[in-house]
Amino acid sequence: MVQLSKTMRTTKNPFSLSASNEPDRLAEIYRAAAQIICDKGYDATSMNDIAEAVGITKSGLYHHVSGKRNLLFSIMNFGMDSLEEQVIIPARAIADAEQRLRTIITNHVHLITSRSTSQGNNPVTIVVDEVAGLTVAQRRKIDQRKRAYVDLIREALTELKESGKLRDLDVIAATFSLLGMILWLSRWYSPEGRLTPDQVSEEVTKIALSGLLRPEA
Amino acid sequence: MVQLSKTMRTTKNPFSLSASNEPDRLAEIYRAAAQIICDKGYDATSMNDIAEAVGITKSGLYHHVSGKRNLLFSIMNFGMDSLEEQVIIPARAIADAEQRLRTIITNHVHLITSRSTSQGNNPVTIVVDEVAGLTVAQRRKIDQRKRAYVDLIREALTELKESGKLRDLDVIAATFSLLGMILWLSRWYSPEGRLTPDQVSEEVTKIALSGLLRPEA
Repeated sequence: MVQLSKTMRTTKNPFSLSASNEPDRLAEIYRAAAQIICDKGYDATSMNDIAEAVGITKSGLYHHVSGKRNLLFSIMNFGMDSLEEQVIIPARAIADAEQRLRTIITNHVHLITSRSTSQGNNPVTIVVDEVAGLTVAQRRKIDQRKRAYVDLIREALTELKESGKLRDLDVIAATFSLLGMILWLSRWYSPEGRLTPDQVSEEVTKIALSGLLRPEA
Repeated sequence: MVQLSKTMRTTKNPFSLSASNEPDRLAEIYRAAAQIICDKGYDATSMNDIAEAVGITKSGLYHHVSGKRNLLFSIMNFGMDSLEEQVIIPARAIADAEQRLRTIITNHVHLITSRSTSQGNNPVTIVVDEVAGLTVAQRRKIDQRKRAYVDLIREALTELKESGKLRDLDVIAATFSLLGMILWLSRWYSPEGRLTPDQVSEEVTKIALSGLLRPEA
């Protein structure tokens, strides 16, 4: 019942600040800010715009974040933290490469679709690629985190190639084709459309695994 | 030989304005501007930055384009014009749905890889999604052009579904999965990497067609 009432409140105003704890408040700020950055562009977005969208004063916003550039960096780390918790860590725990690949696909698809908005996008996933607004040092850190994820996929495909399960494919081209298929969801999937997150996950998994793996004999 | 010397000049300074005709000059301006917009973000890019990258004066730049917002719109239309000429028109001329799908994939992959830079991106393809900087009317026009392309892919997949050649897939999920796979190339392919455009095209076509179509009996 607690879960249900939380969902209902979120449905009414997804970006309103509830009487929740700091991590929850931060997550709400990051999501609201990411949506405005997607709509207006990073440079055209002011701290005022973000405060307004979150429903707090500008000084209230500065209580949570120190400035716009750090906010952008925090949104990206928030996105990468979710990826780490929901995709990378569970996948790393799986020894079998095919099962690991399947977990990467389904968990990443779920991560994107579960936070997609009725505008048909997942703003946090999109903002993770807005690296132009970062300092060089910040960009390096985000790039490192992205590279670790690319490596996880590449290693699973390399193992599948060695065991003869991968089609006759270049592992790098296969890695990025898979990533493109998954990440593009952040730009088209709408929870108000015909397909549920489970259905989309099933479709993408089917296309990806049929495209990458040899049919079983 | 003319072709060769042109290539050599382009290699030295890809964005220098050559003594060429207006469409060529415009194409060079659009590509240079798209690269800076990718690097710095649209709002942080000034007309001065663009003039400098193209190697002309700011007033020289204003001879070709009327302002930054119109330049952004022109870059997107330039990208969509290339897509129309090199992908949509050739594909529409093909009656067989499987052959049409194959042409869409290989031609679109070639369009992206042939203009990818050594930084590992195709700035024009990326900027086509920077719609936040457009007016509502401009955005509507770009969205219409994108929708026409989505429809082309969707119709090919629907025909393949009707003739029993498509796997048991949702046509919309399949359309956007394919688009993601192709468009993501604009964010990872570098002509200085190991794979030639032909190899990448072959890899992406193999993954996409194996993923989407039933294996032949």
